[in-house]
Formats: sequence, structure tokens, C-alpha cells
Amino acid sequence: MNIIQPAAPQLSPELIEKFRNIVGGKYAVTDAADIAPYTTEERDLFHGHSPLVLRPGSTAEVAAICKLASEHRIALVPQGGNTGLVGGQTPHNGEVVVSLRRMDRIREVDTASNTMTCEAGVILQVAQQRAAEVDRLFPLSLGAEGSCTIGGNLSTNAGGTAALAYGVAREMALGVEVVLADGRMLNALSKLKKDNTGYDLRNLFIGAEGTLGIITAATLKLFPKPRAVETAYVGLKSPAQALKLLSISQNEAASSLTSFELLADIAVDFSVRHGIDVRNPLPAGHPWYVLMELSSSRDDARAALEAILAKGLEDGIVDDAVIAANLTQRQAFWKLRDEMSAAQKPEGGSIKHDISVPVAAVPDFIAEANAAVVKLIPGSRPVPFGHLGDGNIHYNVSQPVGGDTAEFMARWHEVNEVVFAIVLRMGGSISAEHGIGVLKRDELPDVKDKVAIELMRNIKAMLDPLGIMNPGKVL
Amino acid sequence: MNIIQPAAPQLSPELIEKFRNIVGGKYAVTDAADIAPYTTEERDLFHGHSPLVLRPGSTAEVAAICKLASEHRIALVPQGGNTGLVGGQTPHNGEVVVSLRRMDRIREVDTASNTMTCEAGVILQVAQQRAAEVDRLFPLSLGAEGSCTIGGNLSTNAGGTAALAYGVAREMALGVEVVLADGRMLNALSKLKKDNTGYDLRNLFIGAEGTLGIITAATLKLFPKPRAVETAYVGLKSPAQALKLLSISQNEAASSLTSFELLADIAVDFSVRHGIDVRNPLPAGHPWYVLMELSSSRDDARAALEAILAKGLEDGIVDDAVIAANLTQRQAFWKLRDEMSAAQKPEGGSIKHDISVPVAAVPDFIAEANAAVVKLIPGSRPVPFGHLGDGNIHYNVSQPVGGDTAEFMARWHEVNEVVFAIVLRMGGSISAEHGIGVLKRDELPDVKDKVAIELMRNIKAMLDPLGIMNPGKVL
Repeated sequence: MNIIQPAAPQLSPELIEKFRNIVGGKYAVTDAADIAPYTTEERDLFHGHSPLVLRPGSTAEVAAICKLASEHRIALVPQGGNTGLVGGQTPHNGEVVVSLRRMDRIREVDTASNTMTCEAGVILQVAQQRAAEVDRLFPLSLGAEGSCTIGGNLSTNAGGTAALAYGVAREMALGVEVVLADGRMLNALSKLKKDNTGYDLRNLFIGAEGTLGIITAATLKLFPKPRAVETAYVGLKSPAQALKLLSISQNEAASSLTSFELLADIAVDFSVRHGIDVRNPLPAGHPWYVLMELSSSRDDARAALEAILAKGLEDGIVDDAVIAANLTQRQAFWKLRDEMSAAQKPEGGSIKHDISVPVAAVPDFIAEANAAVVKLIPGSRPVPFGHLGDGNIHYNVSQPVGGDTAEFMARWHEVNEVVFAIVLRMGGSISAEHGIGVLKRDELPDVKDKVAIELMRNIKAMLDPLGIMNPGKVL
Repeated sequence: MNIIQPAAPQLSPELIEKFRNIVGGKYAVTDAADIAPYTTEERDLFHGHSPLVLRPGSTAEVAAICKLASEHRIALVPQGGNTGLVGGQTPHNGEVVVSLRRMDRIREVDTASNTMTCEAGVILQVAQQRAAEVDRLFPLSLGAEGSCTIGGNLSTNAGGTAALAYGVAREMALGVEVVLADGRMLNALSKLKKDNTGYDLRNLFIGAEGTLGIITAATLKLFPKPRAVETAYVGLKSPAQALKLLSISQNEAASSLTSFELLADIAVDFSVRHGIDVRNPLPAGHPWYVLMELSSSRDDARAALEAILAKGLEDGIVDDAVIAANLTQRQAFWKLRDEMSAAQKPEGGSIKHDISVPVAAVPDFIAEANAAVVKLIPGSRPVPFGHLGDGNIHYNVSQPVGGDTAEFMARWHEVNEVVFAIVLRMGGSISAEHGIGVLKRDELPDVKDKVAIELMRNIKAMLDPLGIMNPGKVL
């Protein structure tokens, strides 16, 4: 997808030199081949272009970049691990990319206060590992964790598989450090769980997709590391049965229920067919599956999980179930889930949605969306899977077998329209965890409260009056 | 305390009539005796005055009030249960009070999605009870719960005794409905746990103390009702030992640890001396006490609590402990804690602080503050108690025995200054859960990041350009 906006002003050689002086010669990238990894993304869905990638090494350098960019009205696109799914990190119109990846210092780990202060470029997995080393848990977990960064996670308010118990990225940040469009630095870092001194500025920048400023560091919450983690894979008849099992699980395990993923059989089939070393832990034949996990600081997770499954079997909700016997099995269960997105590619075109509805509405949503999509494009194959506990379904639609891929993909927005209509009727969201970026920007005004859109525009104008911060994204 | 601002414009009889027409005759209060309960507060610390109290019954009426007020530049003070502790709900300069208490409808309870949509005037205790009736928990809990309202709880981002496990009020709201200064209505109600469609407007109004708009309703999270709640009262030597016990407790119980309150012996003594039917559950003589509670969806809370206390005894951290044997004992333990604020009044003047520091810094904070305060006012009696698990201490100072109360109270800001200097040096907050209101307004610019203050002013100007929403509060 190429998103064309009014052309950005040409960068003069003198201005490039000024930017280069801020970050130092080797960290101002101008060679086209070196720039390429910053302008495209893994799925090959978005292709941008840029004359200059800046790789600052400190907050002061980011501030100097923003100040200079403001003075010359140069548009900037902040970028972390370049794993975003909505084109938010791509320079669609020749903007200067500001890559935060070099700012990868973990400034402090405080086990007494259970906080960790990371710079924006720290890779999520590195943050997880550092927490584990001090016997703590940093619970944010998602497919791209090996390459996505804390700054990107916060700018997009990432969700993932542990949000059920620990919340989304927003809820894991106690404070942030932000460089504003004009180069001012907002120090809202904080180790405090309670701080009622004025307006909540932190949450304005979290989830703003780099359009209001650049998050350069954050103080994150750490949690006690669970002593016992137990994982089950369950076969059942329908999303409605899965919802009943969720209810039983929450009553039994409360916040110990750390994941509850719903998987359609077709999603499982794709993963088994196309993933390497992926297998279905149960004999095939169930129309739906649930992958669920309990985490506990005590040794009661196994007993709780067994009690949940026993009740599920007794009530006729669970048709079959297996509990991972060891870490290897547990990882195999998760591999089946983690391969699910990638496994759709070999099946041809896939039109993707990242929606949420109230948890109780998920079964109706899936039924209605399936019917509407198949009516619109006969033979198309809905592949719903995702975080049932959060009401968040990755409602993807694969092309008909043997059909024309380009023809199918050309109907992206048409399919969106049908699906989003159902989402909105149910009080849901067209972007649960991936954000708006450019992919859903044009839909936003139609689905959002009018006053909310007005306020968003006012906030944008207030914080970025020149419109240089990630222009054309979100709004 | 009387806070004098430039006089509000006089309300003409015609304008009063227009306001009256919006809410209906009996809900426009103009009689001085009927107005009095809205202009003073329980502790008798703040005394305001107002010509008119409006009691709207719907969001549409609130919107009409704001629109009319905007047109005539009439300042408004939104008010819930009038239990705020920083003068935020008081009309210090003759503003019109908008009392939300009549808007007390629980619009919806959705047990499948675990949400409850309450209007602003719903009493916190009523919300708790409604959740309990459907076998759920609404965990927000604080001293004033019998009279404070959901709208006020959110506007002040209330904390309380369950924030350790469930977070502060901000974290319990999925969405809000807000009337803006000009009468526009923002519908950001939502049952969604994940929604990444644009900027986080919800958190801008939560904690803004009514200075950016009036919260008229909110969608709140419900949690599974714990099956077992176990409460212990522990005697120990110091805040440092209490911190060690907190660490043991978090490792053992993780999120099942729902309260962890630190109590100085003098706070316990006051409560026993002045409270009705309050007794110390342990033989006196311990310099410090901890009141801690575990809540679990399974029957393991008692075993976990016993394991924690056993380890604490073994390590020489716990000197004595008692577990509540039944609900009556549990309530008696909490009564000792709940009476603590009121019990300071009979001891004469009390200069109060509601501070937070990183959890690990609490012992040093108490030691340094005690030394500094007693040095400043020999014979003054520090009475620290509060939410150790959140790093939030109500650091109150009672006057010297037999001293002059007025003379002592006149040194309020001097004592503040000494205490706040220590708080700031430790990276803490001068208002952990009570807010800024007028009480700490003048200190705010000295303790807050300069850029943060600039942004707060910009946000205020953007949302309330005429300055009619709770003027003189926070900023």
C-alpha cells in the first residue's frame, strides 16, 4: 500500500548535515540500501521512502532532532522495531525516520519498588529477560517480542496474550519520558503507583502512535514471577461454549487466569499445515479450541486447572482436553498459536481485522461476521482466533481456494465495511490492539464519537501545531 | 480556609430563572440554609459560598447547564458526595454548584462482560453492593464509601485500601461520558478492555478534578468475587521490617495480596482511645503494626497467609500476629484502621499530608520526615499510616500535647515544605490519592516538571477556554 500525502519539503544537503551533526556521522543513514529496512515491513504490505534515517543515542539527541525539524518544518516518523501492523512506522511521504533502536539502555531495575526504567529502544524480549533475571515478571507478551521495542509497544499501546490478567501496555507503564515536537522534554518518569498531582499526561502519549511526541523512556511495572504455570488445550463445540468455560475459569482462578485464547479449527489446521514442527495436541475434529493458561505464585495452579476442566467436562462444555505435562509441551501448545498469523500467508490473500466487542458478544459477532463475509464473497474462508478473555478477535478472512489473490485483496475495504458494521452495532472497536496508523485512518471518523474526533484534532494541533510528528497517521 | 479569587460575575434573577428551567423548580436550590451542606465539608476545613446549587437529573440537563454557563461566563463547581479532602468540590468564590447526586442510576450490569455502567451520582457503596448482588466485586474501597460518588471517585482518581491489587479508580474505568465546558457531550463509554482507536481521552478527564469537564457516567470493570478473604494483624519493629514482610507476601500471594496497611503505634493508640468499640487486636507495645488481607477465588488464602506469617516469624520480621477468626473479627481489625483519620481530631490540630514515594523508600521517608518535623516543632507528634504496598503514606502530624491549636495550624505550609522536600528528593508525589484541589494548588508549580505544567495549562485552555470549569482548582 502506498499512502500519498502532500509532498514533504525537500531536505537540503545543508540540513542533512545539521541533522548528521546531532547524531554523529555513522548514525545518519542516507544510503538507499541501508534505508530500505526502515521503509518496508515484514508482511510487505506497506512501502515507504525516506532520504534520511536518524539513529539518536540519547534523549538529548532526540530533542535536538525535533527542535531542528520544527525550525525547518521537516516531518518525522518515529520508529521502534518496525513491527507495527497498520503502517504507522512507515515514512509514506519521504519523511525523516527517527529510529529509537540505539537507545536500548535499561536505566534502572528496582526490585524493592518492582519497577524497571527502559529506554525506548529496548527490545521487549530483553526487558522480559532482565525482569526474569531478578526473579520478576514483565508480562507484556506478543508475537513480535523478539524484535519490537518498549517505545513502540507503548506508542501503540500493545496488547498480546497476557492482557487478560495484566492489562495492555498502557497499564504496565508508571511513567514516560517524551520529547515533544518542538524539542521540549517532558519528564513524567515515575516509580509511583499513586500520583494525583494534575492531569494524566502519560496516557496521552501512550497509544498516540508517535503523532504527539516521541516516547524516549518509560518506567515499567514488574510483577512477582509466577512459581507455577499450567497450560491446557481444550476442544469444544462453539464460541458460546468457550465463553462458558471462560466464566468457569474466571470464577475458579480469578487473576491467576493469565491467557484464554479461542482458536477456530481452520486456524489450527493452517498452523499445523504450514508451520514447522507444529501439531494439534488433540485428535482433530473439534470445531473450536481454547488455549488457556494459569499462573500462580503458589503450587495450586494445576489443581485449579484440573478443577476447571473437570467442571467443563461435567457440564458438557469441554469435549476433550490435555494439560501440558512439561515445559516442552507447553511451548508446543503456544507454537501452534504463535504460528497462526504466518500460516495464513501460504493460503493466499488474507483480509485482516483486529476487532474487539464486549466479551459476551463474541459468539454472536463471529456467527454474524462469518455469514456476512461468506455472503459477500462466496468461498472465502473466515479464520477467527484471538484473545476471547479480552473480547479481542483477529478476524481474518482467507481467499477462496484457487481464487485470484489480487482480485480478492482488492475487496479489502468492502470486507472491512461489512465486518466493522457488525462490530459497531455491538459497541465494539475496529482496532483493539494494533492501532490506526494509515490502515484504518480513513475509517476512524465514521466509527468514532464526533466529539472524540474533535478533541483528538484539538490535542494534535496543541502538541504538534506544525504537523511534523508522524503526519497522516491516526488523524 | 477561604480561598479568594477574582469575584464571579453576579447571577441575575433572569439567569437563575434560566438555570431553574433546565433542572426544574425544586432542583434549583437558592435558599441559604439548603445551600449550606454544599459549601462546607465534614472536617470544617473549607468554607465556600454559592448563590445557586443545581441538581440535574440527566446528562442532557448537565449539558444544558454547561451551555448556558458558557454563554454567560458563569463559573461552575461540579460536586459529588462532597467528601473530597483538598477543597476541590467547594465553591470558594460564589460559583454555581452542579451537584451530580441525583444522577444515581446504574444504567446496566453485564455479568458476561463483567462491566457495570453507573451514572456519576451513584454512591460508591451502592455500586459495591450491586456488584455483590450479581456475585461480582467492585473493588474500590475507601473511608468515605458510604457517601462519596462514582463521579467524584473518578474525577479525583481515588485510591483506597484495595489499590494494591486492583489499582486506583483510573484503572477500574473502561469508559466515561463527559459533558464539556461548552455543553458538548463526549460519549467515551465502552465495555472494551482493548480499544486502540485514537488518543486516550478517558484518562484526561479521570483525575482532572472537574476542571476539564463533568463526568456524568462511567463503565466500570467488575471482578470475580473472592471466595475467601483472610485478614491478619501483625506487630513488628519498624517500617523496614514491614517492607520485608511485604516482599515475602507478594512473593507468596502475588495479586491475592489485596491490602497491606502500615500503622504507627500512635495511630493505633489514637484510634483505640477515641474510636467507639475500637480495640488493638494484639497486646500493645509494638512500635509498628501491619494490617494485611489476602483474597482468593479458591480456598487457599488461609494457608497462604499462615505461610507468610510463619516465614515472617522464622526470619525475625514478625514479632506477633493474629488472624481474624471470623467476619466480626475481620471487621473489628478494619474498624481500627478506618477510625484512624477521625481519631486525630480529639488530639488537637493535625497537619496532613497524602504523599507517595517509591515503595522501597518508605522507611527512609518516615525516619527523615519524623526527624525534620520534630526538629521544626518540638513536641509535635507524627502519626504516619497508610498503604505501604503503594508507597502511599498519610503522613499526618498532631500538635504537641497541651499546645495552642491555632498557633500549630498556622504552621501548616511550613510543615508541608519540610515534608515535601524529603518527598521530592525521593522521587515522590505530594498528592498520592487526594488530588490537588485548592489545598496544594500553589505548591504544584514548584514540585512538578515545568513542561508538565505547561502542557496542563495548554490542555485547560483547550478544553475550558473561558475558565468556567471549577476555576482555581488544580492550576
